Amino acid sequence: MKVIYSDKHQAHQGGMELHRGELVPCYEMPSRAQFMLDALRQADFPILPPRNFAPEQLERVHSADYLQFLRTAYSQWQAAGKSGFMLPSAFPARGQRQDKIPTGIHAKLGYYSYDASTPMVAGTWQAVEAGAHCALTAAALVAEGEHSAYALCRPPGHHAGYATFGGYCFLNNAALAAQYLRDQGKQKVVVLDVDYHHGNGTQDIFWQRDDVLTISIHGDPATEYPFFLGYADEQGEGTGLGYCHNFPLPAGTDWPTYQQVLLQALQLIKDFSPDAMVVSLGVDTFEDDPISAFKLKSEHYPLLGAHIASLGLATVFIQEGGYAVAEVGQNVAAVLQGFEQAAQS
Amino acid sequence: MKVIYSDKHQAHQGGMELHRGELVPCYEMPSRAQFMLDALRQADFPILPPRNFAPEQLERVHSADYLQFLRTAYSQWQAAGKSGFMLPSAFPARGQRQDKIPTGIHAKLGYYSYDASTPMVAGTWQAVEAGAHCALTAAALVAEGEHSAYALCRPPGHHAGYATFGGYCFLNNAALAAQYLRDQGKQKVVVLDVDYHHGNGTQDIFWQRDDVLTISIHGDPATEYPFFLGYADEQGEGTGLGYCHNFPLPAGTDWPTYQQVLLQALQLIKDFSPDAMVVSLGVDTFEDDPISAFKLKSEHYPLLGAHIASLGLATVFIQEGGYAVAEVGQNVAAVLQGFEQAAQS
Repeated sequence: MKVIYSDKHQAHQGGMELHRGELVPCYEMPSRAQFMLDALRQADFPILPPRNFAPEQLERVHSADYLQFLRTAYSQWQAAGKSGFMLPSAFPARGQRQDKIPTGIHAKLGYYSYDASTPMVAGTWQAVEAGAHCALTAAALVAEGEHSAYALCRPPGHHAGYATFGGYCFLNNAALAAQYLRDQGKQKVVVLDVDYHHGNGTQDIFWQRDDVLTISIHGDPATEYPFFLGYADEQGEGTGLGYCHNFPLPAGTDWPTYQQVLLQALQLIKDFSPDAMVVSLGVDTFEDDPISAFKLKSEHYPLLGAHIASLGLATVFIQEGGYAVAEVGQNVAAVLQGFEQAAQS
Repeated sequence: MKVIYSDKHQAHQGGMELHRGELVPCYEMPSRAQFMLDALRQADFPILPPRNFAPEQLERVHSADYLQFLRTAYSQWQAAGKSGFMLPSAFPARGQRQDKIPTGIHAKLGYYSYDASTPMVAGTWQAVEAGAHCALTAAALVAEGEHSAYALCRPPGHHAGYATFGGYCFLNNAALAAQYLRDQGKQKVVVLDVDYHHGNGTQDIFWQRDDVLTISIHGDPATEYPFFLGYADEQGEGTGLGYCHNFPLPAGTDWPTYQQVLLQALQLIKDFSPDAMVVSLGVDTFEDDPISAFKLKSEHYPLLGAHIASLGLATVFIQEGGYAVAEVGQNVAAVLQGFEQAAQS
């Protein structure tokens, strides 16, 4: 399996995030990607740079005004006399207006975001655009006939909605990959999200569509980020009704329970009978992850890969979360190795 | 004019707020009230403690679940092993759920709030309940026949909605006062908000009602907090259509411009012909206010008071913002003195 990677991710060093009431150094840091890259190199995966894609490709899943905001936000911040990382602090709540895009940079930041945990810096756009190109390249390889590919995206993407950022995410790499597969002729695509956190951005983007099935297995939003989406009763809307499935699980969930739910999710995928698959691969389900509460061990990640491979689907893996930096690389490599071994057998 | 004050406000010392991208010490600090109290004492206003009111009085303008949250939030925070001030960091955005109240304290904080600038501490409920009782006491005095009364509320209240907190505000003291006047038989009440920031909470609470007219003169929300409400085209809804007026003004607005708009607002009040008035009195329109951008000078505050008095209405003044601590006291006293002198002449 080819690994697509760009070191442009290093331009995004967020600084500080507001996490559960405290301003702390960002959990989503450049060393995460380095750990993954090292582990994948050591496991002999071939590492390739991303191709370039036209800016219009991003508009397939994000609004034009949102993309324009992401491209220009930091220069507006600088024009307002500010430096360092930028964080929104006020957000449009219940009873406030969603129809009017404010002009000031502090207001705009809040308008497009939904948390104070996703700082932007001067290099953020450069990094996220490169990450999106990694995802699109991996999708292109699969569209061109490869059985699988992996995009080492950093920062992650699955929390980014059609026109919202949050949860360290700006461009939804998994949604971009799924849409690319659709655009290249795959009639039905599934996005399976195994990150610890609900893939709310992906759900948002495909909420009203029946050509992209979204399934997410994650910590219960009643207590776990992103808090306001990811409940089991969310099933899509309009044409999309029935094409969204959420499996919220309690803190302390271990592999036997997780595996049981994963098998339910895989059955739903079989029933949908898709032409290709995108996996939002977070490894923050790991027992030692600093901001998550599942109890998967390193030995379970090859099994996760093998279960996914059992579907026999052409598969694009997109890197999402995973914050226990020392183990994040080996756990990612283990999923991909488990997938490859099962796919070849 | 009687001044209603409780030193219980001191129990609310927020700590730090996220302000325009930086975590800074709270602008809304206990010394604000001390400066006001000192200036009012020096100007010989009689200072009285608040009466007590039944908890149900607060439910006249806030939801029961929201009040229960405010009362119990800090003990939930402590039960989660946390200490110090608590700040929300994630909020329900466009496309996220508003119908499901999460159970975890971090999630609940974000559910009920709309900014990361309004910390709560162990003493917050004690302080805001006492502030609400100050507002209700001032309203009771006016309902009982006094021509005017002033409630030295701290923290302020006009950003607090039916079930949302933000902008340093938890209970909407002005809305509580207006509702109390209604409950005591005043048929029509106006709330005039002259704080630098839009009175979004008050607008939210009375949005669908024609018995309480809300008027706010404030910095343009396109660039000024609260950003997502306070535009001129907001006019109320349903029965309330036409009973909400907003006057957003640009940065740098000076007294001549401000006075002109104030006179328009006063004409609207005359047309409404109310039985009583509540003034949300912020003095952050002052030229040296650290977080605002109007250019009123101290000499203009008696004129503001005199203009308000010209309506001849029984009037409850409720303290809102004002953060240039050295001058905040004298500017508040100047408004009340200007009002009294004009009312007596």
